[in-house]
Amino acid sequence: MDDAHSTAGSYVTSGQEFTRDTNYITTRITRDGVDGYPVEAGRYRLVAARACPWANRTIIVRRLLGLEGAISLGLPGPTHDARSWTFDLDPGGRDPVLGIERLQEAYFARFPDYPRGITVPALVDVPTGQVVTNDYAQITLDLSSEWREHHREGAPDLYPEHLREEIDAVNTRVFTEVNNGVYRCGFAGSQKAYEKAYDRLWTALDWLEERLTGQRYLVGDTITEADVRLFTTLVRFDPVYHGHFKCNRTTLSEMPALWGYARDLFQTPGFGDTIDFVQIKQHYYVVHTDLNPTQIVPVGPDLSGWLTPHGREELGGRPFGDGTPPGPVPEGERVDPAHTPLA
Amino acid sequence: MDDAHSTAGSYVTSGQEFTRDTNYITTRITRDGVDGYPVEAGRYRLVAARACPWANRTIIVRRLLGLEGAISLGLPGPTHDARSWTFDLDPGGRDPVLGIERLQEAYFARFPDYPRGITVPALVDVPTGQVVTNDYAQITLDLSSEWREHHREGAPDLYPEHLREEIDAVNTRVFTEVNNGVYRCGFAGSQKAYEKAYDRLWTALDWLEERLTGQRYLVGDTITEADVRLFTTLVRFDPVYHGHFKCNRTTLSEMPALWGYARDLFQTPGFGDTIDFVQIKQHYYVVHTDLNPTQIVPVGPDLSGWLTPHGREELGGRPFGDGTPPGPVPEGERVDPAHTPLA
Repeated sequence: MDDAHSTAGSYVTSGQEFTRDTNYITTRITRDGVDGYPVEAGRYRLVAARACPWANRTIIVRRLLGLEGAISLGLPGPTHDARSWTFDLDPGGRDPVLGIERLQEAYFARFPDYPRGITVPALVDVPTGQVVTNDYAQITLDLSSEWREHHREGAPDLYPEHLREEIDAVNTRVFTEVNNGVYRCGFAGSQKAYEKAYDRLWTALDWLEERLTGQRYLVGDTITEADVRLFTTLVRFDPVYHGHFKCNRTTLSEMPALWGYARDLFQTPGFGDTIDFVQIKQHYYVVHTDLNPTQIVPVGPDLSGWLTPHGREELGGRPFGDGTPPGPVPEGERVDPAHTPLA
Repeated sequence: MDDAHSTAGSYVTSGQEFTRDTNYITTRITRDGVDGYPVEAGRYRLVAARACPWANRTIIVRRLLGLEGAISLGLPGPTHDARSWTFDLDPGGRDPVLGIERLQEAYFARFPDYPRGITVPALVDVPTGQVVTNDYAQITLDLSSEWREHHREGAPDLYPEHLREEIDAVNTRVFTEVNNGVYRCGFAGSQKAYEKAYDRLWTALDWLEERLTGQRYLVGDTITEADVRLFTTLVRFDPVYHGHFKCNRTTLSEMPALWGYARDLFQTPGFGDTIDFVQIKQHYYVVHTDLNPTQIVPVGPDLSGWLTPHGREELGGRPFGDGTPPGPVPEGERVDPAHTPLA
């Protein structure tokens, strides 16, 4: 088991298809506080490793909606041991707000016998130090709907009512076939399971390539939750999934519509400025010792292509609808300039 | 240690740079028979696995020169154990001419205590069953010069006197930086050794990209030994070296001159018709368990690009000089149609 984004010693089970554990802590932070955790600025901390695609979604949505002032951000390092993500990048190896070394501590603070993997993203209740939820699929939707009164002026509607049915349908296929599909390739326990996974993945990528040939965004003519969810997989495709997970029919950069689409989003404030390519590569190549026992991290691919013109404006679309792009990344949350082509 | 093309259990030595064992059996087959092995049609068998880039050179040169009738070809399967390449693709698991199951037997027939790896290519003296030489760098040169009286009509001069100095210089750099350079990346025993190897490789590939932007072939205006030696590495680049050996700045298909050059040669009789992409992938991904413990073999990359127009004719050049292309591949030596885009 791995990301959304768990810790475990072994990722490949011989002879088996990879199956993701989809049991999460489903407590929600809501306006009405029905689960005991009401929306409240300054009360919660989002713990989200930059390396992890599922956590990356929450970092992007928080940026797009301007929730940086309402929900603080804790950033575990890219690698973890078999038990927990750790705050090894922070001074003294402790999260400066939660005061813990291991995310596991927040899980145990609420559930002393928590039996499953310690995953990011997680929202932690700062006063008690207890994890509230790690249900990543719900977290971003709740940031859009429940936290609306704390959104910045000009924040986009990433999950508009009239498009929810279509967004949900796209998200379902993207999740099973692409977000999780790359893991199904990489963690396949047999040649047969891998080949089946490969076919499923490329069938879906062909569908997306065709869909995005004629339209700028996945659903409607503005950025939505669906784009966020696809983007975090695409941005990892050439650096990780192509080689490490053997998703190698072509590179992303050889699929014209998907590559244009991915660059368009990358160059949009709130997307590319959350991406740390070095941490992404370190995570996969160091943690998955059953795929990469040497733990050597590739130097490539060349990242300069991410900043090339994508020409997607010709397809129309209004990235933020009636809203506006987010402002600069807050001081203290900027990606190391050596880890991104944006710097 | 591995190819030219040895067998050994472990390829990566922790903390070490990869160093190729370049000690070979330097006996030569010559017109004057000074080493005891005179040129003689029908006497020798070339044992050359299709998977191996060093062996691939000899298969190509034999084809280009039309030596199929003079020197027979034995084809070990793509994978081998720690002790030897084996004839597992042949009926009964035995080479039909030499009658042996393991290439090791031919080495031991001549040197009962042979201490080094069992490598392909190897030339074996059929009457005695003894290996004559495995010195791949000399083998192809001798096929050009010593076996001249057995060349087909219209055979090209792959190692013309007046270009030897330049060919040798190019070959030296291509060998150390590219042919062996990809292995130096893949078998690096530390992050530092890998990164140094990666820089060396890409410096050389940039040099080749530039050199081949303005000229069709590496040396002169016809195909030479230098092109054979570069081709066998390039053809393996995207299927193997890019991901498996982490040579991933870009794919070959993203380097315009090198990709055009590689396709030009691939589409030239004697080059592409020797390439078995399935065996190539099986070899690396199955044998190197310290790099790929799952032994899962990637399905990609898509091979259809190899047959696309390359446009290199515009650079001029005469592939076979005053000679002609080789005829069809002899019956019994054709690559499995399922393993090549040429079929």
